[in-house]
Amino acid sequence: MTVNGELQPAVNGHGEPSTPRCEVCVVGAGPAGLMLASNLVRLGIHTKIIDERPTATSLGRADGLQPKTLETLRMMRLGDNLVRLGTKVYDICMWASTPDGSLVRSGRELHYPAAAVDLLDPYILLCHQGMVEDMFIQDLRFRGVEVDRSTKFSSCSATSAGLSVECKVNGTEDDRELEKVLAADFAADYVVGCDGAHSQVRRMVPEAYAAGTPHDSLWGVLDGEVDTDFPDIWSKTVVHAAAHGSILVIPRERNKTRLYIEIKGGDSSFNSKTLGQEYVMQRASEILAPYRISWRSVEWFGRYQVAQRVANRFVDAATGRIFLAGDASHAHSPKAAQGMNTSMHDTWNLAWKMNLALRGLALPALLETYEAERKKIAHDLIDFDVEHASEIARGDAAALAKNFRKNTAFIAGVGVAYAHNVLNPPDGSLTPLGRCARPGSNPPPAKVMRYIDANPVDIQTDIPALGQFKVFLVVPDLSCEFLATLCSSLSAPTSLISRLTVAARRSYAAKPRTAGPEDDYFCPERYTSISDLFTFALITSTDKSSFEIAHLPPILASSPWTIYLDDAASLDTQGRSCIDKWLGGLSSSEAAIINVRPDGYVGSVRRVESTAAAGVEAAQWMDEYYGGFLQAPW
Amino acid sequence: MTVNGELQPAVNGHGEPSTPRCEVCVVGAGPAGLMLASNLVRLGIHTKIIDERPTATSLGRADGLQPKTLETLRMMRLGDNLVRLGTKVYDICMWASTPDGSLVRSGRELHYPAAAVDLLDPYILLCHQGMVEDMFIQDLRFRGVEVDRSTKFSSCSATSAGLSVECKVNGTEDDRELEKVLAADFAADYVVGCDGAHSQVRRMVPEAYAAGTPHDSLWGVLDGEVDTDFPDIWSKTVVHAAAHGSILVIPRERNKTRLYIEIKGGDSSFNSKTLGQEYVMQRASEILAPYRISWRSVEWFGRYQVAQRVANRFVDAATGRIFLAGDASHAHSPKAAQGMNTSMHDTWNLAWKMNLALRGLALPALLETYEAERKKIAHDLIDFDVEHASEIARGDAAALAKNFRKNTAFIAGVGVAYAHNVLNPPDGSLTPLGRCARPGSNPPPAKVMRYIDANPVDIQTDIPALGQFKVFLVVPDLSCEFLATLCSSLSAPTSLISRLTVAARRSYAAKPRTAGPEDDYFCPERYTSISDLFTFALITSTDKSSFEIAHLPPILASSPWTIYLDDAASLDTQGRSCIDKWLGGLSSSEAAIINVRPDGYVGSVRRVESTAAAGVEAAQWMDEYYGGFLQAPW
Repeated sequence: MTVNGELQPAVNGHGEPSTPRCEVCVVGAGPAGLMLASNLVRLGIHTKIIDERPTATSLGRADGLQPKTLETLRMMRLGDNLVRLGTKVYDICMWASTPDGSLVRSGRELHYPAAAVDLLDPYILLCHQGMVEDMFIQDLRFRGVEVDRSTKFSSCSATSAGLSVECKVNGTEDDRELEKVLAADFAADYVVGCDGAHSQVRRMVPEAYAAGTPHDSLWGVLDGEVDTDFPDIWSKTVVHAAAHGSILVIPRERNKTRLYIEIKGGDSSFNSKTLGQEYVMQRASEILAPYRISWRSVEWFGRYQVAQRVANRFVDAATGRIFLAGDASHAHSPKAAQGMNTSMHDTWNLAWKMNLALRGLALPALLETYEAERKKIAHDLIDFDVEHASEIARGDAAALAKNFRKNTAFIAGVGVAYAHNVLNPPDGSLTPLGRCARPGSNPPPAKVMRYIDANPVDIQTDIPALGQFKVFLVVPDLSCEFLATLCSSLSAPTSLISRLTVAARRSYAAKPRTAGPEDDYFCPERYTSISDLFTFALITSTDKSSFEIAHLPPILASSPWTIYLDDAASLDTQGRSCIDKWLGGLSSSEAAIINVRPDGYVGSVRRVESTAAAGVEAAQWMDEYYGGFLQAPW
Repeated sequence: MTVNGELQPAVNGHGEPSTPRCEVCVVGAGPAGLMLASNLVRLGIHTKIIDERPTATSLGRADGLQPKTLETLRMMRLGDNLVRLGTKVYDICMWASTPDGSLVRSGRELHYPAAAVDLLDPYILLCHQGMVEDMFIQDLRFRGVEVDRSTKFSSCSATSAGLSVECKVNGTEDDRELEKVLAADFAADYVVGCDGAHSQVRRMVPEAYAAGTPHDSLWGVLDGEVDTDFPDIWSKTVVHAAAHGSILVIPRERNKTRLYIEIKGGDSSFNSKTLGQEYVMQRASEILAPYRISWRSVEWFGRYQVAQRVANRFVDAATGRIFLAGDASHAHSPKAAQGMNTSMHDTWNLAWKMNLALRGLALPALLETYEAERKKIAHDLIDFDVEHASEIARGDAAALAKNFRKNTAFIAGVGVAYAHNVLNPPDGSLTPLGRCARPGSNPPPAKVMRYIDANPVDIQTDIPALGQFKVFLVVPDLSCEFLATLCSSLSAPTSLISRLTVAARRSYAAKPRTAGPEDDYFCPERYTSISDLFTFALITSTDKSSFEIAHLPPILASSPWTIYLDDAASLDTQGRSCIDKWLGGLSSSEAAIINVRPDGYVGSVRRVESTAAAGVEAAQWMDEYYGGFLQAPW
């Protein structure tokens, strides 16, 4: 098993070849499945990704990337091209009808005002789902993995060695008349259903299906190039005409506009079959009157009824090997541009855990956190969405604005927070109020200066995602003794950190990460010089001129690209430094350790007096933390 | 002649086909030639680009892009990938030997401190010349133009219709043994020699060659991956060891380092032939001692002696059809990372002028500005470079720093300024001190909010380069009468602006710009809705809520993507708005017009009281300005 994505014949107990085998079978090549496959393949996991559709998504479906998603993609060193080509939505407008029949703008404000939420990218990026998929497909292709298309997952069942998976492979579209259907069986350690709302994988997970709560309003969605004198089509805009219903306007890339158009429930003379494109266009004209609208071209038309549901199970309890993610595990309204984002973050959460599990470096507790963490987020999303969707339909601008303000950080994605568990233990020290580096949460964006090359960098994305934990040692004053005793304790061969490092080094030597097309430029080896499992980083407010990297303890001196200065040049517009934003400030006699998970969420935080004794204790605390979910089997 | 880059048979007076013909023959496919060809082809000019080398530059040569170059590429919607992959140098370090033989760091500071120079990209971007060339080659390829390689320019001569060009085409490297040499003749309106220091085109321009001023020191250049304990290899660093000479360290992309190593003039026992790679490496070790240095790999080694010269002529006076640009017209030390940047800006300056000349929209005065403008810059560069190169060699840190500070804006490229001429007439109104929108200069970078979609944008790059003039109407208070009378005067069919617009529309209809690979996303048509020759833009500090784009005068209302708000959200870190930075502020009873040339340099500026009468006068002033170098022949 040395080639990613290519099924290798396994060998059974008798030394005879049996069915081909992969480590993870990803079912569905939408954003969730591709995010998973891309991460697994990057980390060196033998991955097969199948999709029943013969081609990638070219039209319609999802279109919005939230700020947190861009941050996540930056950790993967992806997404710059989307940012370059996509349309950025910075503001949100509200229009309502007046008694005399005209429309007036009742509100126009920033979508993500800095005062409400601190974001590196304070906008929604509109770029078609197909562009996102293509980005991942190219990334996989460079690493030698292609999506197996026209391949439909049929079933899977537990075996002594894992799972046996059955699929059917259709002929391509060109020879569809042949109705060539091939059965394809293979073995896998894990199967992940990223196969959408009608998931076939979900049928393999007993009790997973949850009944939805269908809303009574029906919506049409129209993508195209419009000709209109309505002034706000380049903002996200909600228009509510009392007599005719609501429209949500979403600006699109390539000079296109998406309209979500409500078809009032009261129109009982129509059933959903007859509510075609022409009808929906007419509705749009009525709602937007007295402004005129016509279409230069229509790219896609769809209809949907809002239904909110969350699967009862995200993982098969019996085997622990069958997982659900994305639309297979939750459904909701598309109008808050959450679907593609939440789905990708489901598998972003799962990928690194699965990697460590497959490498034998994780205790079972690690993979168990997936369901707990992502099911909570799905419920948080549905709770928000029920209100949001109905307020758009009601056209209640004030209620919509209030709901929006309450949920701004969540909508942006940075407000997503996991409950306490073994990965995110409660912070024993005094955590400041407001957003900070809090276990289970995203750390706030912060700028620091990289010592070695004086580059100003965004600390939350500077270290690329390589499946490793990022250990930020925050030591304002380097003249303390804390750093020396901490580093020497961590480096001791008996520490769990050291033993995990040895085990991880062996694992990655045997099954390395795959090289990316731009690794020559990004130099990932700079971040794994000490360990494949931990990148140690220093954040200090000590003046640059008073220390040299070479004089730091070895685990830092050997990682020169992760020495960061919390300096005056890096303050944000409100005068806050990284240490201020992450920890609410530290005195010169204090220090802190922030363990950041491979997915960029804060794991655990400890704030101490920067004494020699505290360094020894902090190293023990780290061993305890990592011992809760990792193991060094060798 | 409908296909770019493909030679079309012209027809002679007797209706018989004669030699093939292009409008511009670009000789040399380095950065200068490719910048020219890319711009000409984009603008719809039939361009042939030839190069005697069989392949593009893959190693060595230039590596640094200055901030102004990145700004220029942004106007072309290019360069993002270079920024993403290149190495950014933010600081500069100085080291000097001490009497006891050790080295000490004598200085470490930002290369482009904000207090010294206001830059959108305050760093040098290190990315290999081959990456820059490839970017242009891809851009040309999409537009149907390939570089004609292994094609050596022989000569050109004037004909009644333009120029007759002779070339020789070698076989490819693979069949070199055949010594296949084909003659290739064609006709061209213009030939531009971008063929380097040993330019063959220069021989066609009488009296162009200038004797150089060779410096007596010899330098070796080494690109490779180093293993060293010297701490500052990721900064631009000058090391001067009294006994052994100087090194200039330049960090490179792909974990590489470039070293410029001085070979002291006193080493008379060596001639330049024997000063090989091993010798230069040994020199580097001696200079850097007591730090150690060795090479993991060496990618390229070169040697050069500094020689400064500027060609006496940049254009053939007799025909006005043969031009020189880049290294063909000037030579200097490579150490300030100016060569590739200055060369590209030579042809950036030439391309739009040549386009308008070929379309018959320009008076001869326009193309005549090329030599005057770029020759001045070449002399400015040499004046700076003589000092800079000798100070690096002398290791005089204080003098180097002083020279550097004096020339910071020039080195960054934004300080480049053209003398007054027909394009850059003196500003009659009171120009503020310091950097501002000054005729012949780059406008300072400034942020504004785009009205239509609330995007914060960099105003100096927001309107893409499409060969058009950008007319910024700066009207703080929209309740004045100035804007209405100005726009109505400009729109009158008898105005030169209107007549030029009609002529340009015909010209571009007959010979359109070529479509780029990402035009669907960038929507260039948004910027030529009113005119192919002018993009009208408004900058106002009037509150967004108090006006609608539709209610502006038609030439602005029909250009909704260029209505900009000089608002509180767009202030820079020093609290300055665009109007502050460009004009030193305007009162609410004032207005200004800033005519920005197609290359982004300020052409002319007029500051007026915002009265109705002033609007009429300002339109006349604009007609006079543009009448100085443009014509409407139809």
